Amino acid sequence: MPNPIEYYFDFSSPYGYFGATRISALAAKHGRSVAWKPMLLGAVFKVTGGAPLPSLPLKGDYSRHDMERVSRLWKIPYKMPSKFPIAGQAPSRTVYWLEANHPDKQEAAVLALYRAYFVDDRDISTPEVAAEIVSALGLDRDALLAATQDPQIKARLKTEVDAAIAKGVFGSPFMIVDGEPFWGTDRLDHVDRWLQTGGW
Amino acid sequence: MPNPIEYYFDFSSPYGYFGATRISALAAKHGRSVAWKPMLLGAVFKVTGGAPLPSLPLKGDYSRHDMERVSRLWKIPYKMPSKFPIAGQAPSRTVYWLEANHPDKQEAAVLALYRAYFVDDRDISTPEVAAEIVSALGLDRDALLAATQDPQIKARLKTEVDAAIAKGVFGSPFMIVDGEPFWGTDRLDHVDRWLQTGGW
Repeated sequence: MPNPIEYYFDFSSPYGYFGATRISALAAKHGRSVAWKPMLLGAVFKVTGGAPLPSLPLKGDYSRHDMERVSRLWKIPYKMPSKFPIAGQAPSRTVYWLEANHPDKQEAAVLALYRAYFVDDRDISTPEVAAEIVSALGLDRDALLAATQDPQIKARLKTEVDAAIAKGVFGSPFMIVDGEPFWGTDRLDHVDRWLQTGGW
Repeated sequence: MPNPIEYYFDFSSPYGYFGATRISALAAKHGRSVAWKPMLLGAVFKVTGGAPLPSLPLKGDYSRHDMERVSRLWKIPYKMPSKFPIAGQAPSRTVYWLEANHPDKQEAAVLALYRAYFVDDRDISTPEVAAEIVSALGLDRDALLAATQDPQIKARLKTEVDAAIAKGVFGSPFMIVDGEPFWGTDRLDHVDRWLQTGGW
């Protein structure tokens, strides 16, 4: 089995959302799967001194403009949520819980959570909201809600965030293909080419 | 006459170098010219709180790796210079002097200066070095050297940097097409599409 594409993302990241809509098709084209790796940019920023893009002088205005422009180009519904950024713990934990319990629902859950936040302006940082949205995929709402408070799942998310930082992940999305790092939706074309050619 | 593509760049920017090798052909494809706009990221970072990419934790390692990878993909000779970053005043001033005196040499001068820095590891921040490199295009070395100390040219560069910041330029390269801003070599394909379609 070839390695999966590791897709690191933060649930508050518009570019993470945009990339999430395309990464599976890209992976499948090359006979790969996707390892969904939600993480917390807030923890990363403590190491890097970074800050949420839209909060930065000049870069913030540009990034908001570019996010709208990419969403129109890719024909993806998108609206900057009224509460931004949000804490990603609850939705991230449901994704790691699904990995162990319903891996076939992971991608649909990631996309449903992203759409709830970036299309319907729902506050997915609330465990009840995250659980409700994912339960619409035919899963038990109470089990999902419990997952957001499960000590093992909590520890898993923390481990994944630490591992991400150790691997050099500093933004969202961030993709790792056979150890090769690619940052940003702007690099999906390089990921595609890398998989096609075996690197250059 | 359609507007030129305004190409903002810093002489210490590897991505500014990579983009400079392609922007003229892209502009010509759409019947546009290029307005070469050297600027000083150091002045921009005072406003934005930014810092040179390679100096940032995690992002620095990645960016050095990505710069090498892009240079190989685009088949552009490139090596991180031994002195990095450098002050861009001298080479930038020669470019603005050429605009008034030998506009047909501007692009060749930009590329020659970039190559001197990123291929031959020459310190183009030194007025004598910058003047020598541009003089190889068949221009008077003493006039070029004088330009690097000309009060009017100095003022021009300062005005351009202030204007760039006022327009929201925060990185290199940064392209403006009919008022529409695009940041990064990653956005050359969007610039191409924007010019093709008139926007989306």
